[in-house]
Amino acid sequence: MPETQPPLAGKLAGLTSSAIRDLLKLTADANIVSLAGGLPDAELMPGVRIAAAAESALRTNATLQYTESPGWGPLREVLAARESARLGRTVTIGEVFVTHGSQQALSLLAEVLLDPGALVVVEDPAYVGAIQVFRAAGARIAAVPLDDEGLRIDALEELIAAGQRPALVHTVSNFHNPGGVTMSPRRRQALAALAERYGFWVIEDDPYGELWFERPAPEPVASYSRSVIRLSSASKIIAPSLRVGWMVAPDRVCRAVELLKQGADLCGSALTQQIATELLADTAWLGGHIETVRTVYATRAGALVEAVGSRFGDRLRCSAASGGMFVWAEFTDGTDTTELLPRALEAGVAFVPGQAFAVSTAYTHAMRMCFTTAGPEVLAEAVDRLARAADRPAVVVAGR
Amino acid sequence: MPETQPPLAGKLAGLTSSAIRDLLKLTADANIVSLAGGLPDAELMPGVRIAAAAESALRTNATLQYTESPGWGPLREVLAARESARLGRTVTIGEVFVTHGSQQALSLLAEVLLDPGALVVVEDPAYVGAIQVFRAAGARIAAVPLDDEGLRIDALEELIAAGQRPALVHTVSNFHNPGGVTMSPRRRQALAALAERYGFWVIEDDPYGELWFERPAPEPVASYSRSVIRLSSASKIIAPSLRVGWMVAPDRVCRAVELLKQGADLCGSALTQQIATELLADTAWLGGHIETVRTVYATRAGALVEAVGSRFGDRLRCSAASGGMFVWAEFTDGTDTTELLPRALEAGVAFVPGQAFAVSTAYTHAMRMCFTTAGPEVLAEAVDRLARAADRPAVVVAGR
Repeated sequence: MPETQPPLAGKLAGLTSSAIRDLLKLTADANIVSLAGGLPDAELMPGVRIAAAAESALRTNATLQYTESPGWGPLREVLAARESARLGRTVTIGEVFVTHGSQQALSLLAEVLLDPGALVVVEDPAYVGAIQVFRAAGARIAAVPLDDEGLRIDALEELIAAGQRPALVHTVSNFHNPGGVTMSPRRRQALAALAERYGFWVIEDDPYGELWFERPAPEPVASYSRSVIRLSSASKIIAPSLRVGWMVAPDRVCRAVELLKQGADLCGSALTQQIATELLADTAWLGGHIETVRTVYATRAGALVEAVGSRFGDRLRCSAASGGMFVWAEFTDGTDTTELLPRALEAGVAFVPGQAFAVSTAYTHAMRMCFTTAGPEVLAEAVDRLARAADRPAVVVAGR
Repeated sequence: MPETQPPLAGKLAGLTSSAIRDLLKLTADANIVSLAGGLPDAELMPGVRIAAAAESALRTNATLQYTESPGWGPLREVLAARESARLGRTVTIGEVFVTHGSQQALSLLAEVLLDPGALVVVEDPAYVGAIQVFRAAGARIAAVPLDDEGLRIDALEELIAAGQRPALVHTVSNFHNPGGVTMSPRRRQALAALAERYGFWVIEDDPYGELWFERPAPEPVASYSRSVIRLSSASKIIAPSLRVGWMVAPDRVCRAVELLKQGADLCGSALTQQIATELLADTAWLGGHIETVRTVYATRAGALVEAVGSRFGDRLRCSAASGGMFVWAEFTDGTDTTELLPRALEAGVAFVPGQAFAVSTAYTHAMRMCFTTAGPEVLAEAVDRLARAADRPAVVVAGR
């Protein structure tokens, strides 16, 4: 049938699926070990506990009805208590807003906080899902690099000194995706102080903070200033299919988000929110569960980093792998990771080239590896395959 | 604490909670019978069947993981079969996209189909949630009135003849919210023909189509043209807390929506989507369940209309109440429903004044009444109270 339908919006012209994403569709192949994903391990998710909570939630039909746009009341109460403990102050119900995963918080906040043309500072390399929503909101993007202490405050200060005035700074403060690093306490305090001094918002995007391996993550950036909006999520500590994320933000921000949430999707699911309520309220059980996840992930991260060290030596340098789900690695010998990817897939291993997360810097020689969904032996095998691929010369295709 | 945080986006200045919404917050009062809601009856929702489906869905951890942005595969298959039957043609998986309720379909489609300044035609009175998203997308809104046969095609033709070129026409084709009416087959065909002739999209928003009382709703507008995107939902036939809506749209529209869904919230819930899959696939059970809902709602609708007839006679004229959840009623004696509302609340009954749904016409004398959540006796009592309120003169407050 010929395409006789009306046109789509003009702005969609720039929105296309990336070449890398298309390439990575190949990783569904069972012969490929994928370090390219960004998923928590489903086998570690508490299915039995969730089933019991679902059964209990479904004893009343109240969990079948539409719920309030800011979230199921009992969940907001549990989250307020949890965040009060995390932030070291009383967080009120009015400051807690439940979203459909924390990605929705990002997308609604982009609408609430940004006028078209506003300047948003992101980290470089960046969480791609954040850039996507800021661009969709019509923002200008500036990038500030990361180092081992997280977002480089000196670079942000330089940008401000050069006359730039960000409306918003986005940071993944703990166990960065994709960079792996955690912002130091000193820098957290400095970022909060800059936010107050220059009147910008900070979004502290923290889905990984509880997945620490050796020591807990530092106090949240949000504990230093009310100009910092904190995002967190049940996806990495319980299960993504609850689609429960949340933000802690000033009441007037939450009320503005509420108006937009009504247009976006009316409300979340009272059913999955009640399941999340029961699991998050049972802090003793949850503590033990998260410790199990941490221990397993720590073993896997250690195995991956060790395998890289033993197979590559100084040729491929990894981030510290002190928590979260990702290791960021950079080739020191000029190996181009985008060129490496097709050979790696042929050898049976997938990763995401650094280019996919690049904002200002190209990250030609970098890559992101996810260690959550394979055991130590499989991870070691994956690194073996990667080494074999990296040792083969790039194929020169005739005519290109 | 003084407000020392940064500002919100300028465009939020126009977005405020309406006076009517604020007034209706009073309806939580247990002494007030609310006809103002827009909720299906939770008592009729299949809690036991949903609990069984949840138990079955949670036998595997696969339902705990992130799922694909267009929706859980098995659900899209069931929906493709269901919509193939409804549309009288083979609907492919690629044409089915699952959203977080059909409100999300509206909000993503507004982004995908509309350039800023595009003209959108809505019905008058209108579904408020649609106007909200079209305005947020920067569209210009034009209104075309309803009559007993639904959207007045002659008025749409006049608008086109006057040189207006809509990008999109939105219609609630069956058992309109708030108007109660259903578009006639003749008009459906005419609307589809206009869409093809003038190259505009139609969104056929159909959450209520299965809730017919005497005879099934006519063939969908979407059965006449591929320029018609059809939206439907499990919220009114199973339960809102599944947050399962869906659209049937050309593949290229679905792919564009997919890119935006990733930014909006990544994906839906594999858990609630698997529950929906099981219930929607069991067509024998579902048919029986929907018939029960229909029968109960038909009795309630009949009781409401009869009570209005017996208490008000010709003074208050109701729509036909042939399906759905709402009756639209208009005072023929000039009674102003916005002025009536505070007196009605005092008398112990709530409704939504027509003004809340007005686009071009004021609907000063109209009101929407929802008949789903109260039994016949309570509905009769509600109408009694309404009559008492309408018989009292308006209170003149000194100094106003």
